[in-house]
Amino acid sequence: MTNPAGLANPARPADPAEHAAALLDRVRATTPLVHCITNSVVTNFTANALLALGAAPAMVDIRVEAGVFARIASGLLVNLGTPHEEQRDAAREAVAAAREAGTPWVLDPVAVGGLPVRTALAHELLEHRPTAIRGNASEIIALAGVGGGGRGVDASDSTESAADAAAALAAAHGSVVAVSGAIDLITDGTRIARVGNGDALLTRITGGGCALGAVTAAFLAVSDDAFAATVAATVSYTIAAELAAAPASGPGTFGPLFLDALASVTADDLVARADLLVADAPALVRS
Amino acid sequence: MTNPAGLANPARPADPAEHAAALLDRVRATTPLVHCITNSVVTNFTANALLALGAAPAMVDIRVEAGVFARIASGLLVNLGTPHEEQRDAAREAVAAAREAGTPWVLDPVAVGGLPVRTALAHELLEHRPTAIRGNASEIIALAGVGGGGRGVDASDSTESAADAAAALAAAHGSVVAVSGAIDLITDGTRIARVGNGDALLTRITGGGCALGAVTAAFLAVSDDAFAATVAATVSYTIAAELAAAPASGPGTFGPLFLDALASVTADDLVARADLLVADAPALVRS
Amino acid sequence: MTNPAGLANPARPADPAEHAAALLDRVRATTPLVHCITNSVVTNFTANALLALGAAPAMVDIRVEAGVFARIASGLLVNLGTPHEEQRDAAREAVAAAREAGTPWVLDPVAVGGLPVRTALAHELLEHRPTAIRGNASEIIALAGVGGGGRGVDASDSTESAADAAAALAAAHGSVVAVSGAIDLITDGTRIARVGNGDALLTRITGGGCALGAVTAAFLAVSDDAFAATVAATVSYTIAAELAAAPASGPGTFGPLFLDALASVTADDLVARADLLVADAPALVRS
Repeated sequence: MTNPAGLANPARPADPAEHAAALLDRVRATTPLVHCITNSVVTNFTANALLALGAAPAMVDIRVEAGVFARIASGLLVNLGTPHEEQRDAAREAVAAAREAGTPWVLDPVAVGGLPVRTALAHELLEHRPTAIRGNASEIIALAGVGGGGRGVDASDSTESAADAAAALAAAHGSVVAVSGAIDLITDGTRIARVGNGDALLTRITGGGCALGAVTAAFLAVSDDAFAATVAATVSYTIAAELAAAPASGPGTFGPLFLDALASVTADDLVARADLLVADAPALVRS
Repeated sequence: MTNPAGLANPARPADPAEHAAALLDRVRATTPLVHCITNSVVTNFTANALLALGAAPAMVDIRVEAGVFARIASGLLVNLGTPHEEQRDAAREAVAAAREAGTPWVLDPVAVGGLPVRTALAHELLEHRPTAIRGNASEIIALAGVGGGGRGVDASDSTESAADAAAALAAAHGSVVAVSGAIDLITDGTRIARVGNGDALLTRITGGGCALGAVTAAFLAVSDDAFAATVAATVSYTIAAELAAAPASGPGTFGPLFLDALASVTADDLVARADLLVADAPALVRS
Repeated sequence: MTNPAGLANPARPADPAEHAAALLDRVRATTPLVHCITNSVVTNFTANALLALGAAPAMVDIRVEAGVFARIASGLLVNLGTPHEEQRDAAREAVAAAREAGTPWVLDPVAVGGLPVRTALAHELLEHRPTAIRGNASEIIALAGVGGGGRGVDASDSTESAADAAAALAAAHGSVVAVSGAIDLITDGTRIARVGNGDALLTRITGGGCALGAVTAAFLAVSDDAFAATVAATVSYTIAAELAAAPASGPGTFGPLFLDALASVTADDLVARADLLVADAPALVRS
């Protein structure tokens, strides 16, 4: 059952789960080239997630080349997990080039808040208006400046607690903001989606959130509706996690099985399993 | 049967395997935040090992942030496997901050001996008195200056051959020294433990030793007895390897199964399976 | 059936599949130390592939140490996938040292063509006459300067389309050139081998090509016949892929199973399964 509360997405007459399913098929039909500038911990898992899904990853994170490549890529991810000096320059070049070339791009502000170098860089990159921002509640709250950061990359806040911060970021930067957690929350300031799919095993492997940022870039590459694309990425990714969790005997076997599920999850699976609610976003400023 | 020779640990009335079991439960109950500065080859596996075990990894290895983070982390690992320039500075900052803040930290001197940059850095970091040092016999012998290094990261010496080097390092730097091999040897200069658990498949995957350094940092975070914590980390890790080896069909499937086993190994497993002998250390200088 | 067209390798009286099988056994008997300077995406998988096969990996990619290590290694891989600044200097040092010391080395020119930094570096390194060059058709064509590059690392050309480029590179630099694809093509300018083994799942995981470069370095370490060694590496690797594909349920489970197969594939498997044709190379310049 999709959209259980019966709230229609005003901008899309179609059922949002069916829309997500159509975008998944479009990713596979077009194999978008996803430029990733991401952290050293998850780069392998991220590339494998994109390949499994049906996209084409390219990790280009050195000076000069990052700007060149962001112009020809279908989508770009900038993840700040381990922002070494050369990678920081590469991120700046890539983001500027993406904006100029119209390449959709995703900012993942890993552990922003308590760590000064990435926090400054995240705010600098925000000026280039990311198409989407993906993080956990702590990171979104910290990036919006409405609360302190977490202790590293933990998701110590619920996604609902970050709803106002997400709306503020969306309004300030023209971005879709996705907050990952037990219930994923996605907003563009006008609409808000909540996705109940997923499995806790995603939090027991490193890169469970980071790879979703790359998958989001792949979906942004195949749709002009960034909100719908971000929702579709989240639904596809979290339903794959459900499919993988059943046969897994722990976090180690979950990893390979999740990649298998990203490769095998179908449009029909999304329609059948999506636990997705899309509604009008409440006004940002509350009395 | 634990402690088969009947030698009691003088500083601990409890059976050492039961002590290890209690510390494993404490890691899971407290989810220590482990700051890792480690090599690019094993960073994913290391993070996944910590997550599987029940700890929280954070790879923060850039300038400025490394010092900030080492103050708030529960434990720190510095592994010298691929010490790029920025990472070397990060290691220096982190170690100085850890010492000042009282954060326990582990030095893993990968391939020290024949390679000049990391060898010089290891000796520099030793001045900050690591809580624990973990390496294979060749590395421990090279670090102690009592023999040549191996050819890279091979463990070409038996752990017993490194016993004197381990004792010398322990005495010189106030560290617990753990020598990985078929029989793991752990000493603080006063006590010596030998752990017979493990499986040869741990040597057929990259990071089999490196991730133990991170797991050791997690255990150091939950006990003031660094010797007991290092023993507990080794016992937990090597028993998980035994549990994973049985269903594995080779080194590739062993990797995910080992992560599963790190997640599922119980305190009871440790008590039932520990092949652990703790004794008074012999006097360092022999006639 | 091996060598189905009945073309004998003129330089080798033995059946080429039996020659490959003998070299596989020699790798396992001698555990060659393979120095890898490779990209951050595949470093873990590459090290695990070498360990599974029976070789000893060492990732040494910092300044000063890279040159030291290339002199003592049995073989060297330089892969240009993510050539950060320090790694570029390390590659230069390693290649110069390898040439001086006689260490066989492999150049993997990842995504050369459209990306300027790595393209310039690849041409610079070529001057040191790599023992072997491994890439997909797009990369080999781009490196030879006979066509444009692909869009990143895609193999958008068939290997036959790169046959002339491979021959030109082989002649210009005294290298064996291996072009990876559905049919792998290997030439030293005099002989040409085509290997039909493999599985499409190798293209659905990141590092499927990159790790073959490292495996090639391991085989080069055990034979003075670089052509035969490169053929043997390709046959061993692609037959392991076939063995792994059968039980795999997708790209995620294929990864660990492939490592298992690299560990378990036997000399007899190669003789029984090799789909290998060796012929005299056609003259390079065609009328």
